[in-house]
Amino acid sequence: MSAALLPTYADVLAARARIAAHATRTPVLRSRTLDALVGAELRFKCENLQRAGAFKFRGACNAVWSLDAATAAAGVVTHSSGNHGAALALAARTRGIPAHVVVPDNAVRAKLAAIEAYGARVHPCEPTLAARERNAERVRLETGATLVHPYTDPAVIAGQGTAALELVEDGGPLDVLVTPVGGGGLVSGSALAAHGLDPRIEVIGAEPTGADDAARSLEGGVRVQGLVPDTVCDGLRGLIGEVNFQLMRAERVRVLTVPDDETLHAMRLMMERLKLVVEPSSAIAFAAVLRYRDLFRGRRVGLVVSGGNIDLGALFPAA
Amino acid sequence: MSAALLPTYADVLAARARIAAHATRTPVLRSRTLDALVGAELRFKCENLQRAGAFKFRGACNAVWSLDAATAAAGVVTHSSGNHGAALALAARTRGIPAHVVVPDNAVRAKLAAIEAYGARVHPCEPTLAARERNAERVRLETGATLVHPYTDPAVIAGQGTAALELVEDGGPLDVLVTPVGGGGLVSGSALAAHGLDPRIEVIGAEPTGADDAARSLEGGVRVQGLVPDTVCDGLRGLIGEVNFQLMRAERVRVLTVPDDETLHAMRLMMERLKLVVEPSSAIAFAAVLRYRDLFRGRRVGLVVSGGNIDLGALFPAA
Repeated sequence: MSAALLPTYADVLAARARIAAHATRTPVLRSRTLDALVGAELRFKCENLQRAGAFKFRGACNAVWSLDAATAAAGVVTHSSGNHGAALALAARTRGIPAHVVVPDNAVRAKLAAIEAYGARVHPCEPTLAARERNAERVRLETGATLVHPYTDPAVIAGQGTAALELVEDGGPLDVLVTPVGGGGLVSGSALAAHGLDPRIEVIGAEPTGADDAARSLEGGVRVQGLVPDTVCDGLRGLIGEVNFQLMRAERVRVLTVPDDETLHAMRLMMERLKLVVEPSSAIAFAAVLRYRDLFRGRRVGLVVSGGNIDLGALFPAA
Repeated sequence: MSAALLPTYADVLAARARIAAHATRTPVLRSRTLDALVGAELRFKCENLQRAGAFKFRGACNAVWSLDAATAAAGVVTHSSGNHGAALALAARTRGIPAHVVVPDNAVRAKLAAIEAYGARVHPCEPTLAARERNAERVRLETGATLVHPYTDPAVIAGQGTAALELVEDGGPLDVLVTPVGGGGLVSGSALAAHGLDPRIEVIGAEPTGADDAARSLEGGVRVQGLVPDTVCDGLRGLIGEVNFQLMRAERVRVLTVPDDETLHAMRLMMERLKLVVEPSSAIAFAAVLRYRDLFRGRRVGLVVSGGNIDLGALFPAA
């Protein structure tokens, strides 16, 4: 992809206008206790309270409403470990068009149920990127649906950036912005948004040590491929896309890695102190702040709490 | 207590001004999925996101900041199964005065830890109302501290009503308002607030079937005493006070009872769909809406999500 096709800050602003009627303006929460624990001013942008339970609705909604009417009528298709699938299903419903979601057969049950509840057709496949892409292509050819890639689609990236805009508007100026990194759609969109507002904001991605392709790619200057992710963060098992890698480099994104046990500790702390249900893939941003707290001390830190879709069956086995 | 000592709507408005600098203006959340489930327009006032994790901070804060300087200097004392104790401890800290909290020795561990973390002195006692009152009186005589009763203190009742004010201001007009009923501080303060704004709002209290003294008291016209509560809703084990009973009658509050298993189901649904950590004593309001949904169909329903202080050790045994 040429640099000319990279989304820009203007695309983030356009996305905001396009999704305003559909997406929830989620609250920004603060906690004096967590501020004291870190020694920083933390602002949590609660995208776990977004429709379909994750920031992914922003990007999916922007992609769906960017299509012309004739193209939209044939529907949309994607492959997703869950949150993007549910988001696209719901976004398609807001426009009254069909959605097809190719899902790895080891995906979190609650996420599958959500996709079906939003009226999309689910296509299970093997849990490899190759199988997912192959199946999505097959559905695309059969139905004429438009592929909405979960993190390389420029409209998706621009849409994901809108959460960071609201975080600054509602929570005040930031010194640092921290988001999780999976495929890189959120962190790259957030970097476009943050730097559009204020080029001095440092943008940091938090990545599982067991899926650290973004950290290695930035370090080596070449995008790492073929890494097999091993992490409880089911939303962060995707490898970063080329467009995301380019944007991360252009926007000087720094990536910090966090072991899963620290992410689970942060998740519990967020449930105890913020009273929010968050998924591990979402808690990792706060886990990074705890792990590397010297980097954040005394600073105004925004965190995108990216989603809250955990399988509560594991927490309430009897219910 | 004579009727002249009952708090009024004016007291709720005064409380709002008094606590504005200290209490969080918590968000009002909506969920299309839960609306569809009930067939009503639900607005959830998230007091689980209040400071100290419950609406109780509002009443405690109003009581603490209502004291004159000389009285305040000797501190405050209360007895509480937990949330009011933590709230009073934190409220006292906002004014820099001592707090003493008499706590039943079977109270939820997380709530005890919170009280101590806010700098209050904890005085454990037997889990009976008589023992709690006796111990609080002893501390009061020894220290000169002012007793702030968890639900009969008029300043506490007025403070609790401020959540309902914000719920209507931020969430729009209501047909019905539902809150949990324990001692009756929240439901009576909320009724004052709601009827001050609009006398047509129906105010409903939700009470565990195993602690249904409010329902029985209203039905019989005489306040039931001596009932031994049996419910998982640890915040609703108190029996309603005389002033609360008078206010509930004057404001035509209706009480609906809910079995614990339905409250736990509602709690799980709120965690799944609203992504909020709520305690059972808080989920009971939504449980009542689900149980008696014919009463609510087609109406604009406000619910006070009263607190989120659950012992996560039970959910995360390994962490």
